[in-house]
Amino acid sequence: MNALDPGPEMHALVERLYPLCRSITGNGVRRTLEIIDEYLPLTVHEVPTGTQVLDWTVPAEWNIADAYVADPAGNRVIDFRESNLHVLGYSVPVDTTMPLAELRAHLHTLPEQPDLVPYRTSYYAPAWGFCLAQNTLDALPDGDYRVVIDSTLADGHLTYGEHVVPGRVTDEVIVSCHVCHPSLANDNLAGIAVAIQLATAIAATDPWYTYRFLFAPGTIGAITWLARNAERIDRVKHGLVLACAGDRGSLTYKQSRRGDAEIDRVLRHVLRTSGRPHTELEFSPYGYDERQFCSPGFNLGVGSLTRTPYAGYPEYHTSADNPDFVSAESMVDTLAVCREAFAVLDRNRRYVNTSPFGEPQLGKRGLYDSLGGRSDAKQAQLAMLWVLNLSDGEHSLLDIAERSGLPFDAVAGAAEALLGADLLVACPQDAAARPDPATRSTAAETKGVTG
Amino acid sequence: MNALDPGPEMHALVERLYPLCRSITGNGVRRTLEIIDEYLPLTVHEVPTGTQVLDWTVPAEWNIADAYVADPAGNRVIDFRESNLHVLGYSVPVDTTMPLAELRAHLHTLPEQPDLVPYRTSYYAPAWGFCLAQNTLDALPDGDYRVVIDSTLADGHLTYGEHVVPGRVTDEVIVSCHVCHPSLANDNLAGIAVAIQLATAIAATDPWYTYRFLFAPGTIGAITWLARNAERIDRVKHGLVLACAGDRGSLTYKQSRRGDAEIDRVLRHVLRTSGRPHTELEFSPYGYDERQFCSPGFNLGVGSLTRTPYAGYPEYHTSADNPDFVSAESMVDTLAVCREAFAVLDRNRRYVNTSPFGEPQLGKRGLYDSLGGRSDAKQAQLAMLWVLNLSDGEHSLLDIAERSGLPFDAVAGAAEALLGADLLVACPQDAAARPDPATRSTAAETKGVTG
Amino acid sequence: MNALDPGPEMHALVERLYPLCRSITGNGVRRTLEIIDEYLPLTVHEVPTGTQVLDWTVPAEWNIADAYVADPAGNRVIDFRESNLHVLGYSVPVDTTMPLAELRAHLHTLPEQPDLVPYRTSYYAPAWGFCLAQNTLDALPDGDYRVVIDSTLADGHLTYGEHVVPGRVTDEVIVSCHVCHPSLANDNLAGIAVAIQLATAIAATDPWYTYRFLFAPGTIGAITWLARNAERIDRVKHGLVLACAGDRGSLTYKQSRRGDAEIDRVLRHVLRTSGRPHTELEFSPYGYDERQFCSPGFNLGVGSLTRTPYAGYPEYHTSADNPDFVSAESMVDTLAVCREAFAVLDRNRRYVNTSPFGEPQLGKRGLYDSLGGRSDAKQAQLAMLWVLNLSDGEHSLLDIAERSGLPFDAVAGAAEALLGADLLVACPQDAAARPDPATRSTAAETKGVTG
Repeated sequence: MNALDPGPEMHALVERLYPLCRSITGNGVRRTLEIIDEYLPLTVHEVPTGTQVLDWTVPAEWNIADAYVADPAGNRVIDFRESNLHVLGYSVPVDTTMPLAELRAHLHTLPEQPDLVPYRTSYYAPAWGFCLAQNTLDALPDGDYRVVIDSTLADGHLTYGEHVVPGRVTDEVIVSCHVCHPSLANDNLAGIAVAIQLATAIAATDPWYTYRFLFAPGTIGAITWLARNAERIDRVKHGLVLACAGDRGSLTYKQSRRGDAEIDRVLRHVLRTSGRPHTELEFSPYGYDERQFCSPGFNLGVGSLTRTPYAGYPEYHTSADNPDFVSAESMVDTLAVCREAFAVLDRNRRYVNTSPFGEPQLGKRGLYDSLGGRSDAKQAQLAMLWVLNLSDGEHSLLDIAERSGLPFDAVAGAAEALLGADLLVACPQDAAARPDPATRSTAAETKGVTG
Repeated sequence: MNALDPGPEMHALVERLYPLCRSITGNGVRRTLEIIDEYLPLTVHEVPTGTQVLDWTVPAEWNIADAYVADPAGNRVIDFRESNLHVLGYSVPVDTTMPLAELRAHLHTLPEQPDLVPYRTSYYAPAWGFCLAQNTLDALPDGDYRVVIDSTLADGHLTYGEHVVPGRVTDEVIVSCHVCHPSLANDNLAGIAVAIQLATAIAATDPWYTYRFLFAPGTIGAITWLARNAERIDRVKHGLVLACAGDRGSLTYKQSRRGDAEIDRVLRHVLRTSGRPHTELEFSPYGYDERQFCSPGFNLGVGSLTRTPYAGYPEYHTSADNPDFVSAESMVDTLAVCREAFAVLDRNRRYVNTSPFGEPQLGKRGLYDSLGGRSDAKQAQLAMLWVLNLSDGEHSLLDIAERSGLPFDAVAGAAEALLGADLLVACPQDAAARPDPATRSTAAETKGVTG
Repeated sequence: MNALDPGPEMHALVERLYPLCRSITGNGVRRTLEIIDEYLPLTVHEVPTGTQVLDWTVPAEWNIADAYVADPAGNRVIDFRESNLHVLGYSVPVDTTMPLAELRAHLHTLPEQPDLVPYRTSYYAPAWGFCLAQNTLDALPDGDYRVVIDSTLADGHLTYGEHVVPGRVTDEVIVSCHVCHPSLANDNLAGIAVAIQLATAIAATDPWYTYRFLFAPGTIGAITWLARNAERIDRVKHGLVLACAGDRGSLTYKQSRRGDAEIDRVLRHVLRTSGRPHTELEFSPYGYDERQFCSPGFNLGVGSLTRTPYAGYPEYHTSADNPDFVSAESMVDTLAVCREAFAVLDRNRRYVNTSPFGEPQLGKRGLYDSLGGRSDAKQAQLAMLWVLNLSDGEHSLLDIAERSGLPFDAVAGAAEALLGADLLVACPQDAAARPDPATRSTAAETKGVTG
C-alpha cells in the first residue's frame, strides 16, 4: 500500500470490483468480500435465508449465471455479459419467447437519459426484467424475442463482513459501507476503497475507540447486523456511513437524526475549519444505512459522508456511474477528511480542572513563560488557559476549540501538557469508558468466517 | 347558509347587527345574542350585577332609550338616533341645560380626524358625555344647550352566550369574540360573523376536540366566563380570540403569552405555508380578551387572529368603522385560514412507532412500491418514512411536517396509513385525553338560557 | 469633590498617582492606597510573604530605591528616576559592570515602536533587567557599563484595600481594580479614579446590594482576596472589573464566563439602549482579574468594563500610556455607564402578581385612566400591564423592559406603583436575600488596617 498517495490503489480497487454482479445476497457479495479481505482481514458472516432480523426476514439467495434478450435474428440485443445492470436485480428465472409488445412491460429505460442503462431491482416482489438504454429499445424491431434469465432464487445465505480495529476502550465507532450494488463505481465501490484505507490508517494510530468497519448489503445487511448485535449496540457511540466517496463534487455531510451528536459536531468542525467547500444536510429518513442506525429505536449518533449526495447526480443508479466517474483525487480527499475527523473524535474528551479556584500557577510547573508581559502571547499558553477555564466536566476539547477559535490540535496539546502536570483529570463519565483488558483480544476476531 | 360562498351572508349579518347599541351589559347585547342564535344555537348566561368575578364585580346594567344635545334653537345637533357612537358608553342619565363652554368638558372629538365621531366609554367611573366630529363641534354657536341622556344604570345582569361543538374528547378549544362594541363593524361584528360560520363548518367535520364558541363582552365578559368556569379551565388546551376579521388588510396572528403554544405553531405553519402576506406578532398584554386568557395565572395557549391588528388602522374606534369598511372577501379569507388552522390542530397528535428498531418492512404490508430504485420517490412514501422515523412520542405530526417540508395533509395521511397497519399507536399522553362518553351530551347544552 | 463634573478631579488623581512605582507588593502599592483613602476610606490588608493563597504563595515583598545603567563616561543613560518603567519589575539587586554585549541580554525594547519604553516584569522567576527605547539602545556606544539596581526582595507583605458601601441586603456586588502597575495611566489609574467616584455615587443612593470596592494587585491580589474570603464568596452575586477606563476609544464590555449572568444582561441593556457605540465581547480567560473571579471553581457573574480592551491599543504597556493618553471626558463617560448599570442592577428584581387570574381592576385602585378608549395609551399604564402579565416569579424587571421595549425606569416605576397597591409581592427567592440587621455595621469596617 502506498502510504504517500493511496489514490491509484483506491482507483485500481474500484476497477477490480466493478465487473462483479453484487446484490443483497449471493456470490457477487462473497467475491467482493474476498477481495476486500486481501487488503483488510475480514470476519465474514453467513446468515441463513429465513432468519428473522428485526421486522424483516433474510430472503432467498439470488445468483445469476447469464441473461439475455435475443432478437428475431438471434442476436443478443440485451446482454448480461456486457453489463450486469442489464438485468433487474433479483429477477426470477425465465426462458421464453414473446413478442416485443409483450416484452416491453419487463423493460426499464431512462427516456430522459436515452443513452444510459438504469439500475433496477425487485428484491421482495417476485419479478423479472431487463434494463437498457432508451435508444437501444427504440431501435428494436418488432417480432418475437428470446428471453433468458439463468438465475436461481433459493435457500442460501446473506453475507456480510466486518473488520475491527481494537482501541483502548470497548466503546465503538462504526464505519459502514454498502456492498450490494453491482456495476456502480461511486455507489459504492469508492466508499469501500476509502473505508479500507481508513481502517489501515486508524490502526496505525493506537486509537482510543474500537473501530468497527462493516461491509454489508444495504438495508437488509444493516438490519441483519443490528439484529445480531443487540447486546453490542450500547457500545456504539459514534458512526459514519460512507458512500458516493469518489465523484468529483464537493463533500456533503448529512447529520445523524440527533443533529447534535458528537460525530455531527466533529464533521462540522473539520469541514468548516478545513476551508473546503462542502454542504451540511440535516438528517432525513432516506439515503443509505443511516436510515437503519438512526431509526428511532436505535437513534445512534451515525452520520453519513458522501461527495455529491444520494440521488443527487444524473449518473446516479445508471451505467454512467462507472470507474471513470470517480477520481483518485476525490477518494484521497474523502479519506483525508475522514482521517482528520476521526483524529478529532478520538481525542475529544472532557476533563476536570483539579485546581479550579483561581488560575493555577503555571510558572511553578514550568508551563508558563516566566517573563510576564510579552505582547506575543503564545498560542500554547492561551490554549492552556482556555482548557483550564472550561474543563469543568461539561466542555469537551472540541467545545473548547470552537469557543476559543484555537485549532483542535493546540487545545488537545494543551490538555496533554496539563494532564502531565496533574492539573487535569479525565471526566468521570469519560473515565467510565475505561479500557477493557479483553478488548485487545478482539483483534483475534478480525479474521475468519462465522455463520 | 350558502356553503359555496359564505361572504354575502356574513356581510349581511354585519349590516344587521350594526345599528344595535351594544355595551358591556344591557339589551343591545341580549338582542345581538338573539340574532346570533338564529344562525348558531346559543346557551345564554345572565350574571347578576354585583357578582364577584375574579378581581372584578359585575357592574350595574346600562340601557339607553335616547340621547341628544339640542342647540339654542331646539335642533338636535348631536343625536343618539343617528348613531349610538354619539353617546359616551355607560353615560349616567342627565337632563339639563348648560352653555356650550360648560358642555365642552363632556364632548369628545378627534381633532386630527375632524369628520369622524370617536367611540368612548366610561364603564367604571360615573360620567356622561357625547362624542362628535370636530367639524360639528366647530360649527356650534355659543349659547345654552339642552342636554338629555335617557339612560338607566341599575341592578341587572351581564349577558353572554356560548355554543359548543362536541368532539371526541373533552379537551376544549375556545374561540372567543367580544360583543360589547356598538356600531363598529370590524371591531367586532366581522369577528362574530366569521365565528358563526366557523362553528358550523367545524361541526361538519366530526372533530377530535370539543370547540367552545364564546360571545361575551370584552374584558368583564371574559373575566366572568373564567370566574364561572374554574373547573373547566384545565380542559381548555387551545384557543383563538377573533376580532377585526373583516377589514381589507392582511392577516395578523398575535401569539399567546407562551409564544410556542401549539396554537401558535399551527397558525404560523398555516399562514406561512399558505403563501398569504401576513404578520406575526409576539404577545403583548393589551388588545382583546387574550389579555385575560393569557394572564399569568391562566397562561392558556390562546392566540389572537385579526386582519389589521388592534388599534392599527385610522378607522379604529371611530364612525368610519362602518359596514363599508369590512368586505365579504376579507371575512371569507379569515374564515378560510381559521378552518385550515383548526383542521391542522384537530389532527395534530403524537404517535409512537411500534417497530422502531430499523425501518419496518413496508412492502410486506402493501405500503411500498415494490420495484425499488425508481427515481420518482413518491411523497406518500417519504411521508411514511418521516412519520416512522420521528414518531417517538416527542414529535407531533406538525413537527414532522415542518421538519420534512411535506404538507401537513401528506403527513397526516401517512400517519393514518401506518395506524391502519398497526405500525403506529397513539402517544400515551395523547391517548389519556380519551373520549368521554358524557361528552356527546354537551350538545344538549347548546341551547337554552342559564343564569 | 465636584458633583457636577468629576472629570477634572479624576484626571488630577491620575496625574498624582502616576509617578509612584507600584508592583504586586511594596511601598508603591501602600502609598497608592493611602492616597485613595483620602477620597474613599479604605480597609487595608497586609498579607505576609509565604502565605498560601489557593494554588499560589504570597511572594517576597519588592522595594526599590534607585536603578540605573551608566555609560563608560559615567552618564546615567537608563535612569529609574526618569521613569519607573525603565526597571524590569521585581528585578533582583545588582551592582556590577559589564560590556554592552553582555548587558544586551538584560535589556528590553520595542523594536517596532522604537521611541517607547516597554513595561516588563518577572515576578516569579528571579531576574533583573532594564527597559528602554530601541532608539536609546541603538545610540549606546560599546564599552563597559555600570549596572545598579538598588532593590530589596525580602519577607514582607502583599497589600490591598477594600471599601464597602453597605446595602439593604448582604448580597454583594464587587467592583475590582488592579493597583499593581507603575507609571501606566490608562492601565489602571483611570480605573481607580472611576471606581472612587462610583463608590461615592452609589453610597448616595441607599442601595439594595452591598457594594465592595477592591483595590488589589492583579492576579495575586485577586487570588489572595478570594482565598481569604472563602466564606463570603456565596454572597457575591455580581461584579465588574474596571480597567482601561480613560482612553479615548469607545466602551467595551466583556461578559462573565457565564455569558448570561445578570451583570452581562444589565451591561448589554444599558450599552445598547444608551445608543453609545460600544463593543460586546464574550468571555476569554485572559485579561484582568475576571480571569480569577471567573475561574471554573468560582464562576462568578463578574464581567469587565474597559474602553479599548486589554492589550488592544498600541500604547498598551508602554511609556505612551501616560496621563495625556487618558481624558477626563472618557472617565466621565465610563463613570456614567457604571452608574446607570448599577442603577438598573440594583432595582432589578422579580415579583409575583398577587392577582394573576385575569387582569386586576386597576381603576378601582386609582391606577387606571377611567375614561377608556383614549388612543394615547400611556406608557405608565402599558408598563403596569406588562409588569402584571410577566410577574410570575420567572421574569425580572429587566426581562420585562427588554420584552416590552419600554425603558427600565418606566418598568421599575410601574412595579413600585403596583407594590404600593399590593398587586405585587417580592419573589420568594429574592425576598430570601433579606436585609441583615448586621449589615449596616459593615460601614464600621470601611476604615482601618488589618493583617
